[in-house]
Amino acid sequence: MVGSAARNTWLAGDHDLDVFIGVPDVASLEDALALAREVVPRHEERYAEHAYVHAFFEGFELDIVPCYLVEDASCILSAVDRTPFHCRYVSSRIGGLEGDVLLLKQFMKGAGVYGSELRVGGFSGYLSELLVIRYGSFLEVLKNASLWRPGETIDLKKHSARTHEDPLVVVDPVDPKRNVAAALTLDRMFQFAAVARCFLKRPDIEFFFPSSITPLTDEELLGSIECRGSSLILVEFSAPPLVEDVLFPQMRKAEQSIRSLLERNGFSVLRSDVDWHGRASLMRYIGPGLEDDSGVGEGILRMLFELEVATLPRVAKRAGPPLWEGDHVERFVSHHSEILSGPYVEEGRVVVEVERKYTVASELIQSQISNLALGKHLNPQIKAGYKIRVDQELLGIKDREFREFMARYFSAWQNVC
Amino acid sequence: MVGSAARNTWLAGDHDLDVFIGVPDVASLEDALALAREVVPRHEERYAEHAYVHAFFEGFELDIVPCYLVEDASCILSAVDRTPFHCRYVSSRIGGLEGDVLLLKQFMKGAGVYGSELRVGGFSGYLSELLVIRYGSFLEVLKNASLWRPGETIDLKKHSARTHEDPLVVVDPVDPKRNVAAALTLDRMFQFAAVARCFLKRPDIEFFFPSSITPLTDEELLGSIECRGSSLILVEFSAPPLVEDVLFPQMRKAEQSIRSLLERNGFSVLRSDVDWHGRASLMRYIGPGLEDDSGVGEGILRMLFELEVATLPRVAKRAGPPLWEGDHVERFVSHHSEILSGPYVEEGRVVVEVERKYTVASELIQSQISNLALGKHLNPQIKAGYKIRVDQELLGIKDREFREFMARYFSAWQNVC
Repeated sequence: MVGSAARNTWLAGDHDLDVFIGVPDVASLEDALALAREVVPRHEERYAEHAYVHAFFEGFELDIVPCYLVEDASCILSAVDRTPFHCRYVSSRIGGLEGDVLLLKQFMKGAGVYGSELRVGGFSGYLSELLVIRYGSFLEVLKNASLWRPGETIDLKKHSARTHEDPLVVVDPVDPKRNVAAALTLDRMFQFAAVARCFLKRPDIEFFFPSSITPLTDEELLGSIECRGSSLILVEFSAPPLVEDVLFPQMRKAEQSIRSLLERNGFSVLRSDVDWHGRASLMRYIGPGLEDDSGVGEGILRMLFELEVATLPRVAKRAGPPLWEGDHVERFVSHHSEILSGPYVEEGRVVVEVERKYTVASELIQSQISNLALGKHLNPQIKAGYKIRVDQELLGIKDREFREFMARYFSAWQNVC
Repeated sequence: MVGSAARNTWLAGDHDLDVFIGVPDVASLEDALALAREVVPRHEERYAEHAYVHAFFEGFELDIVPCYLVEDASCILSAVDRTPFHCRYVSSRIGGLEGDVLLLKQFMKGAGVYGSELRVGGFSGYLSELLVIRYGSFLEVLKNASLWRPGETIDLKKHSARTHEDPLVVVDPVDPKRNVAAALTLDRMFQFAAVARCFLKRPDIEFFFPSSITPLTDEELLGSIECRGSSLILVEFSAPPLVEDVLFPQMRKAEQSIRSLLERNGFSVLRSDVDWHGRASLMRYIGPGLEDDSGVGEGILRMLFELEVATLPRVAKRAGPPLWEGDHVERFVSHHSEILSGPYVEEGRVVVEVERKYTVASELIQSQISNLALGKHLNPQIKAGYKIRVDQELLGIKDREFREFMARYFSAWQNVC
């Protein structure tokens, strides 16, 4: 027994079951996988640092993962090999603090900062246990966290063997080179700190079990769009058959590429978000170079951009080099053919006012999206087809997940104060 | 004889006549003024560093200015006392170069950089003479100017006695502490340099006598407004009875205050300009604390603002302090009552989205203009009444000066490349 179940820090409601098959060397890896396939005939194979077997089993999401049995945590071959060492370290120290760990995990869940997967960028279970060990209790974790500053460092064994640039550094007690909090983002770190401060001032059961989000009705969706007065642009396309931790970084990259495109062209982006809706509950892994030929849809990816205005004026100002760089000035001006005003001098620079190529944001996206770097697996999806919806056209989407996404987007509430 | 007439560098077309009355001390100043008043009975009194007499006389604008006769230029009591020293310095060196000075002055006029008055911020006559003395000819001035960089320093007598932060420093040969080019702005300095570069590449008589601007017809004005697609806001009010060098800095200040107001409230200002139209040809001076009770109009001041958009969405994003500044975060959030979205965390800061108070730029100006610092003499004028015109409403103004102003504004052409 390893993991939270072994140390009584398993949070009810979680139905992830990890079974590790320890093998002595790389040569035995295939034997372990063969065994796993036999034990659960109805499975799919996935791939992280190496292959593993994924299945649904009596209501649990089951991963059967081969790992190498190594003598010392500093000699591990893959990340999962650390698990037994983590278990040994925590088990011998967590006695009497299990309740505190459970409180902390549920509190983090309520605050939306629990989970080290890339979509969340929050706290892992192991990290929450180390925080309880470090500070001594649930309340002490909250008190200390509320005073954190970026670069906060926790080194339980005082054996750190590397400097980290991460916002929170928690040196792994079983591996002096590793930061347990490497996946934690600055925003999730301080979201936790702020919610903790909030809770300490006005404790309430709601922090642990916040009321769930209600999908927006047509009236509510329309009302919010009209009340804000901004312009919403939604880009939709089919999801490629990938696991979340592969897909989400690419979606964030695509989101960033489209934001940059908009901003480069003068549009002011108020906020944006991405989500993945209607995906099959059993996800398949497609390895590098393999094609998904199952024909089963993988759900739909949605990227939402909120702009201050949908339309910009035709005239656009372009500031060039300083006037004292003669050759550059001439090249800059001759590069702009359709000059509406200028060239003139402003703050020492040559300025021209030219015709803007794209005055409507959705047309800009439409015209340029296939030229953007959207992420390795997303570019082909976009090329295969996508749909753009603007403002009221969002009402055409009736699915519950999307309406919940919009409810969360408009509220944007994080219990930080 | 002093000034350009004394040294044959007077540019035909200028009709300014300055008569200096040299007095030995402050006590004699009043005698000089009395004499001036007697010589030109129909005059007005103006004030710079001390009082002087201004009048129109046989087609000339005549200033009769008392000055102190001092032994050495470093002992002067007011700026005009330097004039005889300047004249002596230039006269003894300009022989044979008068033609070059005249070419340079006319070239600067054509380029729109001649005149050290604050409205222009360009080159004075004396400065252009010193440049010819320094570089040896009209063409050499152009060649050297085209290589200028900010901070360029010319010290003919190598006797500089002070450091200056100005873009061009020309140490006065008759006063080691004074920068002759102090009134020259960075933009006019490099506008001149760029036009010089241009002329050297493609010399043309047009540089000296550019074609004059044609006032816009209704159709042209409307056409430009529609083609640009931006939003134009014009603020008009009566000019106070002040000389240009007092008024223009205040107008620039007012322009800047309104720009800042717009930008603080989220409006993006593309460009702005100010001008003074329909002023009486004979301007009166009103000293500090004195009131203009003549009832004669002083013309109209116009401030033009061009915005990317006239209307912003209701929702506005406000980024607060970093999350780790707990007290500030709480104060920031409680300060915002009408929260549409959030608070949430973005890049380590707390963010709220609130209702924008002013979504229409002209309403913002209307509501806030009387609270702005517009300049000592402009605030009372605004309080007494002003008019705001937006886009097509500009067509209501038929006067020629305004239509020329708009023609210059839309063209914005400076012969810099």
